Amino acid sequence: MYNIVLSNSALELIPKEMKKKKSKIYKYDILDSNYHYREMRNLKDRERRGRPDIIHITLLTILDSPINHEGLLNIYVHTYDNKVLKINPETRLPRNYFRFLGVMEKVLKYNDNPLIKMEEKRLEDLLNEINAKRIALLTKNGELVKKTEMLKKYDTFLIGGFPKGEIIINEEEVDGKIEKISIYKKGLMAWTVAGIVCYSLFFS
Amino acid sequence: MYNIVLSNSALELIPKEMKKKKSKIYKYDILDSNYHYREMRNLKDRERRGRPDIIHITLLTILDSPINHEGLLNIYVHTYDNKVLKINPETRLPRNYFRFLGVMEKVLKYNDNPLIKMEEKRLEDLLNEINAKRIALLTKNGELVKKTEMLKKYDTFLIGGFPKGEIIINEEEVDGKIEKISIYKKGLMAWTVAGIVCYSLFFS
Repeated sequence: MYNIVLSNSALELIPKEMKKKKSKIYKYDILDSNYHYREMRNLKDRERRGRPDIIHITLLTILDSPINHEGLLNIYVHTYDNKVLKINPETRLPRNYFRFLGVMEKVLKYNDNPLIKMEEKRLEDLLNEINAKRIALLTKNGELVKKTEMLKKYDTFLIGGFPKGEIIINEEEVDGKIEKISIYKKGLMAWTVAGIVCYSLFFS
Repeated sequence: MYNIVLSNSALELIPKEMKKKKSKIYKYDILDSNYHYREMRNLKDRERRGRPDIIHITLLTILDSPINHEGLLNIYVHTYDNKVLKINPETRLPRNYFRFLGVMEKVLKYNDNPLIKMEEKRLEDLLNEINAKRIALLTKNGELVKKTEMLKKYDTFLIGGFPKGEIIINEEEVDGKIEKISIYKKGLMAWTVAGIVCYSLFFS
């Protein structure tokens, strides 16, 4: 089994200090920089927040990957505000973006989805709880992996669930060994990194 | 260089016989079964049409793949109604689904996008025009490829841009050699197939 953890993910309810009025088009209590661009101007860490579209596409990629169809993945979404969603590997996520937002809004508000369970949890605590031992932290600033089959030596993969920047983690609080690795010389979107990791685990 | 062709793609303007009224939420002249479910009930081939979300996610996957960043892909979207969009490899496609629909609506109506050029063209004619020689047609009913590095022997990849079924092509009209191949025992979404092809061309 492998653990995939989308880390510091830009998925959250609209923060209280923002008090966004809902529009006719965008009816969800989920922060989305495409719809809340102006309101987010003064929001802390705004460039790391409000990108649920990244989580949507990345989860669609992971869930349909052969390694997941084989039942070999544990899938977690850790969010900016320290929630962890455990995604059942058989979840059929809506392909439509707005329906996805509807599902996520209910999970984050009511935690009543049988396939997606939420807990308040920091990334470090999650890694210790799932007993992650060899942890690959994917970043373009990590050591370049020459052969993708090398990915198979890890049991856990941390992929940033945000558009730019580095995963924030206090390595001293993590029991397992974290290695920073890179799969390409340039930065890649989260769904690309997730795809390359998942397909490499199955095919190489 | 490799050619990727999303074939028979479920991306089209709302057909005239449908006369769909636009809603406040969905303002686009693009057929989308999520919003036009009822109106599509009597539409011919409806299970192969109206899924622009598949094209959106698949293009996002292809455009961000390392093999594309290296400048080694020609990317085509062939549609259900025999249009071909040539997508410039450096296109920055909107991540937001509705913005994507806005771009595609303008391309299909006015063909005035400098990065996405449209022509009326059948799939067979496209393949002959681009001089496709060794053509891999991806289908779960094809011969299973054991090693993904085998994909590198093809110059052109046909991936179905629709949710279910087989690519429709008259092989006798195609100059190149078409081989039906499969990369996994089960059916996979178009973006998964595209990801596996693109990443295999670069990494294996």
